[in-house]
Amino acid sequence: MDMNDMILVSVDDHLCEPPHMFDEHLPAKWQDEAPKQIRTEDGNDVWTFNGAVIPNVGLNAVAGRPKEEYGMEPTSFEEMRPGCFDVHERIKDMNAGGVLGSMCFPSFPGFAGRLFAAHPDKDFARALIQAYNDWHIDEWCGAHPGRFIPMGLPMIWSAEETAAEIRRLADKGCHSITFTENPVPLGEPSWHDEYWNPMLEALVECDTVLSIHLGSSGQLVVTAPDAPMDVMIQMQPMNISTAAADLLWSTIPRRYPDIKIALSEGGTGWVPYFMDRADKTYSMHHLWTGQEFGDLLPSEVFRRNFLTCFITDPVGIILRHEIGIDNLTWEMDYPHSDSNWPTAPEELHAHFEGVSDEDIDKITHLNAMEWYSYDPFSVLPREECTVGALRDAAGDHDVSVRSMDTGRHAGAEKVSLQDFATRQSE
Amino acid sequence: MDMNDMILVSVDDHLCEPPHMFDEHLPAKWQDEAPKQIRTEDGNDVWTFNGAVIPNVGLNAVAGRPKEEYGMEPTSFEEMRPGCFDVHERIKDMNAGGVLGSMCFPSFPGFAGRLFAAHPDKDFARALIQAYNDWHIDEWCGAHPGRFIPMGLPMIWSAEETAAEIRRLADKGCHSITFTENPVPLGEPSWHDEYWNPMLEALVECDTVLSIHLGSSGQLVVTAPDAPMDVMIQMQPMNISTAAADLLWSTIPRRYPDIKIALSEGGTGWVPYFMDRADKTYSMHHLWTGQEFGDLLPSEVFRRNFLTCFITDPVGIILRHEIGIDNLTWEMDYPHSDSNWPTAPEELHAHFEGVSDEDIDKITHLNAMEWYSYDPFSVLPREECTVGALRDAAGDHDVSVRSMDTGRHAGAEKVSLQDFATRQSE
Repeated sequence: MDMNDMILVSVDDHLCEPPHMFDEHLPAKWQDEAPKQIRTEDGNDVWTFNGAVIPNVGLNAVAGRPKEEYGMEPTSFEEMRPGCFDVHERIKDMNAGGVLGSMCFPSFPGFAGRLFAAHPDKDFARALIQAYNDWHIDEWCGAHPGRFIPMGLPMIWSAEETAAEIRRLADKGCHSITFTENPVPLGEPSWHDEYWNPMLEALVECDTVLSIHLGSSGQLVVTAPDAPMDVMIQMQPMNISTAAADLLWSTIPRRYPDIKIALSEGGTGWVPYFMDRADKTYSMHHLWTGQEFGDLLPSEVFRRNFLTCFITDPVGIILRHEIGIDNLTWEMDYPHSDSNWPTAPEELHAHFEGVSDEDIDKITHLNAMEWYSYDPFSVLPREECTVGALRDAAGDHDVSVRSMDTGRHAGAEKVSLQDFATRQSE
Repeated sequence: MDMNDMILVSVDDHLCEPPHMFDEHLPAKWQDEAPKQIRTEDGNDVWTFNGAVIPNVGLNAVAGRPKEEYGMEPTSFEEMRPGCFDVHERIKDMNAGGVLGSMCFPSFPGFAGRLFAAHPDKDFARALIQAYNDWHIDEWCGAHPGRFIPMGLPMIWSAEETAAEIRRLADKGCHSITFTENPVPLGEPSWHDEYWNPMLEALVECDTVLSIHLGSSGQLVVTAPDAPMDVMIQMQPMNISTAAADLLWSTIPRRYPDIKIALSEGGTGWVPYFMDRADKTYSMHHLWTGQEFGDLLPSEVFRRNFLTCFITDPVGIILRHEIGIDNLTWEMDYPHSDSNWPTAPEELHAHFEGVSDEDIDKITHLNAMEWYSYDPFSVLPREECTVGALRDAAGDHDVSVRSMDTGRHAGAEKVSLQDFATRQSE
């Protein structure tokens, strides 16, 4: 397949929430307490909420910047591409990057909205989350029909309330909910507790995907206080395998055979080993651990219920049939530091040598459309959705790597893993 | 290659320490305080040391038992195959299992000897560790020349003392030392601290392998208090990847390009993804994290300095050239619950379809011989070392799966992950 004929749907991107997003969607009585974006004396644009200050961390908004400028510093809007926070600019960047569709995870509330969920007034927390979701669906995704896969935040503190929100979102056409990969660190019951049944029932009933993003529990693997950041950056995707095992050996996929669980930003090359090891664990141990998978193997259950994705993963593409050709999707991770925007099509296409058109279509867009109930072609003519067509539409939109150094920083800030983990948990 | 022509060297097995092992090797003044094996009122054979009671846990000595009898209960000698603790019986089991050579990790002291290292009297701890090592090399390995790869325990509390022990062991022909995958949970400096330099220098000087076994820091990944054991069993091997990343991004392999690090029981199928991800992390981030690998990529450093192994791992065999054909070894894990003794040759051979004889020889024994300075053929004629020849030598040695249920247990004990972790840390 020619690179320009690919159709790309990214199931993991991120948005930096713009100011005023709550103005139209949160009832008046909560407006004073709503999260506010302010500029600090240091010149950073940060969110404030319930006494906390949450910066836009540099690493999470570096699309288009030289790698030397990546780092952990808080940023201002002038130090980000407008595509980070402005949906119309995002569409221009998607076009120039050859990307048709995108599912955008939140930033300042945490990947699973735990900032809001932690507020003690649950009426307020619920109102905030619903306001966020309405803004996301109606304004962000709604601004450009067919270009986004909508996704909602959950009420993590309550399976019942999350179930209700899943149904409310489905009525608005949203069939993805972001959730923590492990509720335990957040003080909630584990996946092994039937507490979650109401939420799981709503997911199945609405054909909604439980999208669990790496790091969504707020827990990081820190090997040593003085370990370099590279250790965490390398390991974060594969670390989601622990959550995948926790869910696989829970009874959830067996009790809810239609459940859809996406391992967002988890990579794929490790999956065949993971499945082999699950089957081996089952055959060697189930007679004493008491696990019972009936006619299926754990790997078959994994393939039925779990969706994987990669940014670049040559091994995952080589092993696509061992993983399951219907279980692979692609992501761009815009505007995070791992993103290969705007040259994602070039990088991806280089790994598709020898891969059939049918397989490429599944990986690049058909699987994402099927799992997420996303149908861009009902809105946009297919021929306008290809890499080539979108780039033509982008015209002369500037995608050159360019410095956004405003002189506020002395250079990329070096931090240890421990420093980073401490900041994350604050 | 015919199955019977394979030559199998296992780089990860375990021994259950027999009573009286310290009698000949520990100076008289320490004998009263030496670890003692006793039978409890419940009928368990346990080690006692410094106020602690350490049972032989069932899962760690189940070779030859029906899987229904696997479990966490403490055991007695009558409930184990004699090959667990008797070296002459071990050789018979190795012969019947078609295995020429074996490297045996310790049991009751912990995989890296942390039980001894924790004793406050370091003179006594040192004497104990040296006694253990002398027993292991002289009596266990020495009983059957050419059949074992000797391995010593370290003085984890001291890089200098471990360096001295590495040199002492090398003089005795031992070129492997077991060590924790992460010193931090044991209260020691991390791999990112130059504190370890004396030990690393001794390793290089003596061409000794740093053999790090999964779980050797005593830390387990527990997803939830009520998670089933299967989660941990599945994930334990791949979890060593975190230690591998910690070591890879430390400056150790760059400062000591001849260092040899073995990831014992870590599996292999995940390695190509790990290497791709390391290279991607490097290319995307090194300009701000400050990592510098010179002319090499992280994957090339990994391949130069790290040895991997598998019990069964079809994906690892498929990807053997992506991993590095010189970086793969095999293990049997006798007498642990993941072991496929006595049918390891059958299982392994089934995965070797289409694999060249040269590759099979490297994986089954040549790489282990090269990395561990192990030369069985200087002692034993090669033609007597094959699966077929060893099995012939085993004669009618009974390897049938048989119940060793002595009626003391009501059946395999079900434990949660949290229970298991708590017991491990006691």
